[in-house]
Amino acid sequence: MTVDFNSAVNRLKQADNILILTHMNPDGDTLGSGYALLRALKAMGKRARLLNGDKINSKFGYIYDGIESENFKPDFIVSVDVAEKKLLGDELMSRYGDKVDLAIDHHDSSRLFAKETYCESDSASCCEIIYLIIKALGVKIDSAMASCIYTGCSTDTGCFKYSGVTPRTHRIAAELIELGAAHSKINEIMFDTKTVGSIALERMCLESLEYFGSGKIAAICVTKAMLNECNVDKSALDAIKPLTRQIEGVEIGITVKEEDNGKVGISLRTSENYDAAAICAHFGGGGHIRAAGCEMKNVTVGQAKEMVAEYILDDVL
Amino acid sequence: MTVDFNSAVNRLKQADNILILTHMNPDGDTLGSGYALLRALKAMGKRARLLNGDKINSKFGYIYDGIESENFKPDFIVSVDVAEKKLLGDELMSRYGDKVDLAIDHHDSSRLFAKETYCESDSASCCEIIYLIIKALGVKIDSAMASCIYTGCSTDTGCFKYSGVTPRTHRIAAELIELGAAHSKINEIMFDTKTVGSIALERMCLESLEYFGSGKIAAICVTKAMLNECNVDKSALDAIKPLTRQIEGVEIGITVKEEDNGKVGISLRTSENYDAAAICAHFGGGGHIRAAGCEMKNVTVGQAKEMVAEYILDDVL
Repeated sequence: MTVDFNSAVNRLKQADNILILTHMNPDGDTLGSGYALLRALKAMGKRARLLNGDKINSKFGYIYDGIESENFKPDFIVSVDVAEKKLLGDELMSRYGDKVDLAIDHHDSSRLFAKETYCESDSASCCEIIYLIIKALGVKIDSAMASCIYTGCSTDTGCFKYSGVTPRTHRIAAELIELGAAHSKINEIMFDTKTVGSIALERMCLESLEYFGSGKIAAICVTKAMLNECNVDKSALDAIKPLTRQIEGVEIGITVKEEDNGKVGISLRTSENYDAAAICAHFGGGGHIRAAGCEMKNVTVGQAKEMVAEYILDDVL
Repeated sequence: MTVDFNSAVNRLKQADNILILTHMNPDGDTLGSGYALLRALKAMGKRARLLNGDKINSKFGYIYDGIESENFKPDFIVSVDVAEKKLLGDELMSRYGDKVDLAIDHHDSSRLFAKETYCESDSASCCEIIYLIIKALGVKIDSAMASCIYTGCSTDTGCFKYSGVTPRTHRIAAELIELGAAHSKINEIMFDTKTVGSIALERMCLESLEYFGSGKIAAICVTKAMLNECNVDKSALDAIKPLTRQIEGVEIGITVKEEDNGKVGISLRTSENYDAAAICAHFGGGGHIRAAGCEMKNVTVGQAKEMVAEYILDDVL
């Protein structure tokens, strides 16, 4: 069931021994939300810890810096920025997927997998909601919390660029800067830092660029061999995914990526005229209206690319 | 001489038949400032027009859309975002360089070339100042003005990314969105639109990438032949200039560009540890602390690159 803001705040106020769950392929919003909440709950004197099913990129180091790991049996489980339980990853899903007491989320596609869900689908990031919740909890927001929250506000909006940004997003950013968020340093890490390898990957991806539908669709393919040759991990693709959609005339950008275990991951970015989540839902995936993803098995990256492009050409354009 | 905010507002209140001057190589901040002020002065019933010494990129079309050109002998001349008179361009400088009544600016390097200058060097953009001035003039800000002002707030800060952004920047952005600024559309045009040609240029620039000083300096060279081959004009370089500085470990990024008439233009981007304006001042240029430029004559792009890199290696690093 869904609950309102005050109920969500009250649940957290009453809870102790709290486990916070974040989504796999952790991004700035889930980590910023999770660690800001963790820091706030600890500041209230509560016992809390955070789990993520994946390895966390070291660029997020400042988010978890200084947090000591505690082990205890949780009495209350809260997920942040997790739209459905399978996004917890296999291990966390099997352990906690049916035991989440409160899901705090901002996705349109949010499934009500938790006992209670507080979802603001018009919030530009989950961190915006977390900011308001922490304020409502009466916690004094320190610079570490402010930097965590700013990270989600910024990364989930492409640095205040996307249509989901509201006046509230900017006002919260203003307050976070006043509270000591290391805003320009964070943005430099998140948006303006490329390794020599990621630049080489960008060049290779540009070489793989292919158009369909008179230039309305652009697709890029990334193999594990390319990642190896450039000596980068899959997180280097975060900078590649928006690339196709940035080309003039392209309405739907596809990035197809070879994953482990014979899987292929497809990431879609669309213009305001097309619904990325709906297209990905056709292949069992989901996400936001303008950025979504899905997975395929037993196909090559080339086959996956053709399948998605054909479906869009036949049924969407 | 410098004047305070209220004096600048009063000058504009009292003035009529106003000519607004913007800087050459017009960017979102000078055009947004100029056309927002033009729209505001016209809304007050005054006669006003705007001049720019260069061709204006059509991507800024919404900024000047609906403005009718008027010709009249100006009684009051105001420049916006112009740090020194030579930045007006040769023609406007010779006609109006010594006749500017009021300069409104936000550059650290602002020279007091006008009769009166109102400069807030801690403002992230000139448009922030223009917003406050228009409000103080008592003009109701419509969506067209809001879009003009938002353009400068966003483009001069790399979409709220750079260290110059203050809480005020975000609060003004929030108000502009409420006033009807087409924020995400503007950001898409300014930051997320690449032509097939500009993408080809990006690849060629990456191929020209060279490192100096154990990777602390990265330089890219762009020739007219490259621009021709990719079928793009020099404005395509705006997206290239930040590229060098984005590479991990690079403190000073240099983009060297072949200009017309045997000139070479050098654009510098620096980390917080180095002063781009000071380095460019050595070659007769100037700008901001982290982004500045200079020009050379009678050298090739390769020679210019070596000269700048050698100076930095010898005297700066």
